[in-house]
Amino acid sequence: MSVPTEIELGITADLHVHLREGAMMELITPTVKQGGFSIAYVMPNLVPPVTSIERVTTYHESLKKLSPTTTFLMSFYLSKELTPELIEEAGSKKIIYGIKCYPAGVTTNSKFGVDPNDFSSFYPIFEVMQKHGLVLNIHGEKPAVKNTTQSEEDDIHVLNAEPKFLPALRKLHQDFPKLKIVLEHCTTSDAVALIRELNKDTKPEDEVYVAGTITAHHLSLTIDNWAGNPINFCKPVAKLPKDKRALVEAATSGERWFFFGSDSAPHPIEAKSTHVGVCAGVYTQSHALGYLADVFEESNKLENLVKFASTNGLGFYAQPQILEQAAKLDKQRAWVVKRPVQVPEVIANSQLRVVPFRAGETLNWAVEWR
Amino acid sequence: MSVPTEIELGITADLHVHLREGAMMELITPTVKQGGFSIAYVMPNLVPPVTSIERVTTYHESLKKLSPTTTFLMSFYLSKELTPELIEEAGSKKIIYGIKCYPAGVTTNSKFGVDPNDFSSFYPIFEVMQKHGLVLNIHGEKPAVKNTTQSEEDDIHVLNAEPKFLPALRKLHQDFPKLKIVLEHCTTSDAVALIRELNKDTKPEDEVYVAGTITAHHLSLTIDNWAGNPINFCKPVAKLPKDKRALVEAATSGERWFFFGSDSAPHPIEAKSTHVGVCAGVYTQSHALGYLADVFEESNKLENLVKFASTNGLGFYAQPQILEQAAKLDKQRAWVVKRPVQVPEVIANSQLRVVPFRAGETLNWAVEWR
Repeated sequence: MSVPTEIELGITADLHVHLREGAMMELITPTVKQGGFSIAYVMPNLVPPVTSIERVTTYHESLKKLSPTTTFLMSFYLSKELTPELIEEAGSKKIIYGIKCYPAGVTTNSKFGVDPNDFSSFYPIFEVMQKHGLVLNIHGEKPAVKNTTQSEEDDIHVLNAEPKFLPALRKLHQDFPKLKIVLEHCTTSDAVALIRELNKDTKPEDEVYVAGTITAHHLSLTIDNWAGNPINFCKPVAKLPKDKRALVEAATSGERWFFFGSDSAPHPIEAKSTHVGVCAGVYTQSHALGYLADVFEESNKLENLVKFASTNGLGFYAQPQILEQAAKLDKQRAWVVKRPVQVPEVIANSQLRVVPFRAGETLNWAVEWR
Repeated sequence: MSVPTEIELGITADLHVHLREGAMMELITPTVKQGGFSIAYVMPNLVPPVTSIERVTTYHESLKKLSPTTTFLMSFYLSKELTPELIEEAGSKKIIYGIKCYPAGVTTNSKFGVDPNDFSSFYPIFEVMQKHGLVLNIHGEKPAVKNTTQSEEDDIHVLNAEPKFLPALRKLHQDFPKLKIVLEHCTTSDAVALIRELNKDTKPEDEVYVAGTITAHHLSLTIDNWAGNPINFCKPVAKLPKDKRALVEAATSGERWFFFGSDSAPHPIEAKSTHVGVCAGVYTQSHALGYLADVFEESNKLENLVKFASTNGLGFYAQPQILEQAAKLDKQRAWVVKRPVQVPEVIANSQLRVVPFRAGETLNWAVEWR
């Protein structure tokens, strides 16, 4: 088969982005489109977290002003402040499309998060979410109990925090088989295997209820890349080579339960260049589709790029008005074109400098809007 | 048993230190004594590496000027430049006490190192070392083959590089059963297990031929401590909680084949506070014995501290003139005294700032020389 030199991807969706607030939001928000994406599902881990209709609406307005042709899908932050009534209103009016669940303390601005052993207190919320097709987006890491364990069985650390979380995902799906759940930013072969297992009876005509997003950076990084390179440090951390191979295989497989969520997480360079307390997060937004095209080409799976970057994710979210809105806001469609593009050393405005993933390197694929 | 509040440790030995050159050497060398150690075994990974009698003698003189009461044991860097004749001379005259072997490319200034699959070309050197009781100090990590492996069996990464190296150590001991070999800075339960296995027939009256050093920082750190904290990043990296427990158990066991080598490796703060290319190394020299006393107390094994910090290592090196020289150079002996000591945020001179391990924290034990 001849390799295409340009691919139309249509209405593309990055179903996990961090756009922040203030100067960072101003710098980053336009890069969703620049990176090749029509639609962005926006994470709510601001300070304080997004838990009210007023706050999410204001935030949405700010984003739209910064990039009028981008479709932003908004979310709430799962916490005790949410009530079934609030979710009923926000869900029925399509003010939000999902709720993000952070286990307490595992990543940037997750201190208001939940104890994954205590999901049951949120079951009334999940009932309403199921009813409205709202998606539960889960950061799937079990929080570590610091320095108190004495047996390997009990140890939780950055490498096994995701596998240790998976039984909680399995139980949640069992308890809410029609609740749409995304295990965000899968990083392990164990996570890939569980998503597949939970879909083993999903027929082509069935709706998908449990899916996994995979980032661009976890398709390239392993532990050796962030050891000594804080710019590549994120949570969940990139794992072992075998895990990376499993993620690439899953992402490029075309299977409907795997789709793109960049988890692009910008931090000022000062927060990455420090000897202690490096902020977790890799910024990939500005070149997201280019990174993906490189990986898909290397795997000889360019034909599945459109599934990963568009149709699988939009199919899972399964809300027709999303596509309608995106089609209306932007008449152009995303393409990747085989043409070298150098990733800049830094993306900056007058107040901030952010170092993008693979800074200074050359990508094989450029984004064009046509 | 009542817990002592002061312990005499006699002539103490840190059998793996990096003292650098120039301004860093001037800043760090006096901290060997400050940290509680009479004797320091000095690593040869300068640029270019130490491979000649002239260079090692000059280096030794510089160190003695900076800390006249410290006994410095010098070493060569294993490389093609060494000849059996050179080792014969340097060994018989006690100019060096051992030779350090770095697998190429695994840590700071190791690019001149050797391929661990190619030890056989050094066998003539090892013959001479064996004859003179010179110690082969091995950085036991197998170099990674970048991005070319496709199976878990072949993968080499920062977590398994040490276990993957262990067969080479086993073979070397088999080929040279009377060559003194140290697996430096053990970081895994696998390494601890192999050192024990290779000593399973060593009787109390026998000489020890294969030993492992353990650092102070690997008794406290796990992967979670360096993920996001470049100050704690070193090679080999700190591993999982189960590994740390095995190291603490080995260090505090009193077994003769485990002793202290701090691998204290200072870098200017600028080399640790960077978003890419963080230098590997943890600086522990200035408070070395205090860190150890804290760990031994926590394990209720203070009675074995003298073995780990003094007699086991000196027994292994087994050169009477070392003790004689140390006794002559310094009439005082190291003690630890139970008294809170705050680790400073930084150790500095007019040119350099180095952040010590556990900066800003309070240790329970202070060093005194009496």
